[in-house]
Amino acid sequence: MESIEYIEKLSTSSKKASLALRTLPSKQKNDFLRDLAANLRKAEETLLEENQKDLITGKENQLSSALLDRLELNPVRIEKLAASVEEIANLPDPVGEIIRGNLLPNGVRLLTQRVPLGVVLVIYESRPNVTIDVGALSFKSGNACILRGGKEAIHSNLALANIFRQTLRETGLPEDALHLVEKTDRSLIIPLLQQDKYIDLVVPRGGEGLIRFVSENSRIAVVKHDKGVCNLYVDESADPKKVTDIVVNSKTHRPGVCNALENLVIHKDYPHKSELLKTLQEKGVELYLDQELLQVCPSGEEADESQYETEYLDLRLAAKQVDDLTGAIAFIQTYSSGHTEAILAENQSTIETFIGSLDSAALFVNCSTRFHDGGEFGLGAEVGISTGKLHVRGPMGLVHLTTTSTILYGNGQIRA
Amino acid sequence: MESIEYIEKLSTSSKKASLALRTLPSKQKNDFLRDLAANLRKAEETLLEENQKDLITGKENQLSSALLDRLELNPVRIEKLAASVEEIANLPDPVGEIIRGNLLPNGVRLLTQRVPLGVVLVIYESRPNVTIDVGALSFKSGNACILRGGKEAIHSNLALANIFRQTLRETGLPEDALHLVEKTDRSLIIPLLQQDKYIDLVVPRGGEGLIRFVSENSRIAVVKHDKGVCNLYVDESADPKKVTDIVVNSKTHRPGVCNALENLVIHKDYPHKSELLKTLQEKGVELYLDQELLQVCPSGEEADESQYETEYLDLRLAAKQVDDLTGAIAFIQTYSSGHTEAILAENQSTIETFIGSLDSAALFVNCSTRFHDGGEFGLGAEVGISTGKLHVRGPMGLVHLTTTSTILYGNGQIRA
Repeated sequence: MESIEYIEKLSTSSKKASLALRTLPSKQKNDFLRDLAANLRKAEETLLEENQKDLITGKENQLSSALLDRLELNPVRIEKLAASVEEIANLPDPVGEIIRGNLLPNGVRLLTQRVPLGVVLVIYESRPNVTIDVGALSFKSGNACILRGGKEAIHSNLALANIFRQTLRETGLPEDALHLVEKTDRSLIIPLLQQDKYIDLVVPRGGEGLIRFVSENSRIAVVKHDKGVCNLYVDESADPKKVTDIVVNSKTHRPGVCNALENLVIHKDYPHKSELLKTLQEKGVELYLDQELLQVCPSGEEADESQYETEYLDLRLAAKQVDDLTGAIAFIQTYSSGHTEAILAENQSTIETFIGSLDSAALFVNCSTRFHDGGEFGLGAEVGISTGKLHVRGPMGLVHLTTTSTILYGNGQIRA
Repeated sequence: MESIEYIEKLSTSSKKASLALRTLPSKQKNDFLRDLAANLRKAEETLLEENQKDLITGKENQLSSALLDRLELNPVRIEKLAASVEEIANLPDPVGEIIRGNLLPNGVRLLTQRVPLGVVLVIYESRPNVTIDVGALSFKSGNACILRGGKEAIHSNLALANIFRQTLRETGLPEDALHLVEKTDRSLIIPLLQQDKYIDLVVPRGGEGLIRFVSENSRIAVVKHDKGVCNLYVDESADPKKVTDIVVNSKTHRPGVCNALENLVIHKDYPHKSELLKTLQEKGVELYLDQELLQVCPSGEEADESQYETEYLDLRLAAKQVDDLTGAIAFIQTYSSGHTEAILAENQSTIETFIGSLDSAALFVNCSTRFHDGGEFGLGAEVGISTGKLHVRGPMGLVHLTTTSTILYGNGQIRA
């Protein structure tokens, strides 16, 4: 019961703060963000101390080195965090943008403008920089936010949230514009997901389990940031000079992220199958191959079906040979998570058939899957990559933290 | 168990049909819709017979005359239904529209285009025309649809769905592009709402109970079409020549719809309070008034708080006097359902303060709330009026039955 009261207080105070934020002029918002960046730099010592507590607990709990790395703050990362807040200050303000307008036949002037959503809830894991990134993006778009980070990063997250709230106080803004949920037991998530009266959007970022849990229990509208089982098809018409670079870049440039390649599909008549697989192995990639590809690359392991459904986030890759384009499309339709698919081919009609047959957030032709990113798309900072189809699909930017409101200016008109 | 299998078959066959629809050229879609209109006209006799069965059951079950009226088909309404399908054929096809595009700094060409959602589920009540309207809008936007109409209209809905499916067969298209759920017991709704693997969107249209039930139980993304508790504020600066016409039109033009006025808020110094209330009474409107307004209109009934939260959908109106603009805004912030608010005023700064302080799907200045409608907004036919903030807010048109997919055409680019 105590925790329900805590959640209700959190939600109502966020809603109240959001009313003050929604009409805040851009200049005031940008000034706040620059102050926040300065305060982050000033607080380096405290941040490192608090982060150290999380790292020690993490080591005691035997977190993997990859997880410890995601958790770590250091002077370079703190500077990056401050710089990214300044970058958000420099982005155009989406609030107030008129996205549609016309004079209706009856003389009423109609304007549809972007307005803030209100209160945004983001549930995420390990990386403490999300606390500041999402806080700054929500603030810039005129929203209050409630952040529920992982237990393993609680000291770092609290320190960051404190700096954010302190900066709000210093600049005369309501500190409840950002809340970090201090109690990280999972039992608090369900009552949070029932606050649809006060919270307008929930963004779960994390593993499949978390996302399923949120979708099943939320009364609030959800924008999912789910896994990316990215597929890349090498057609017989592909230009071998491009193939190796693109496949290696897609898989090895940053294997731990959602736009990294997971399944490689190769046309049986692509002449350089063996070299391609060998190059991947030389780059340290472990290969899971079907019977046909094992014949050209016997040092690979045999793939089983479940491997084509797996997001490795690691230097591991499943590969499959197909007889033709139809086979490639059927394979991708079966295993795709709707995130990212790519084709390497020079035959234009093959490319267009591939694009017309597949339905994913982004489709890549003769370039790396690693370009599936808000920054690369030219959208600026992003909340993440939405794998749902409603509201936003693909990179979720500032604009997607807004909704619309339509104003109709009349002069006495009534409906006949 | 049998019903779970039925729902799974429905969902998987819809998904399969949606794959055939997603790349259908506009011309073929428009030809189909014109054939559908012709078949509806030809089937007039059957439609009237089947509708008669629903009307007889409805009378036996003592449905209100308003409900029986919503249920009724007659030759004029069938002709209207056919004409609205032809209108949808004439609307521009949203699928394939490029909504964003640029050449990235690395030379990759990026295009974001509209693509169909896939499978759309609509849950609605009584009016059988929804079966054809939503069927035609879904089809035009390249989606398969699953329709779950009310028990009271089942014979009419089945007859209409049969004509739709027969036209699909005749034109060589998959008949599973439209499914009407034949079993109308409510127990089937929960398994339907769990088919997030196959269904991409659910739109509940109906009473609060239905909408709450769907929001609480759906794993599929929901776009709600909830109630409209529309508020209109008459400022002291309002032009009395406009006030009476606009208030009467907002309340009495069609009281049974969501954009009809429910709460009237009047500035204490508006000089024509008494005449305004009297005119409403003369138009047959029953008034619920606070103490102050009862003094100028003693024949009204005394309002209690709950009446300001009620969507009457009837010739009844609650009214409240306020001391100033701040009081009006506070009242509306308390009772608004976020659908429609209006201000009648000539003072520009009053108008801008009102607009800046309220957050609803549409805000009306000196014109009737009855304009909150896709047709009036110039969007063509609509699925309904969304009261949520995500994906679409306000009139939901063809465009909102699509999502986006981004294509990147490269020439060997990799990420550095």
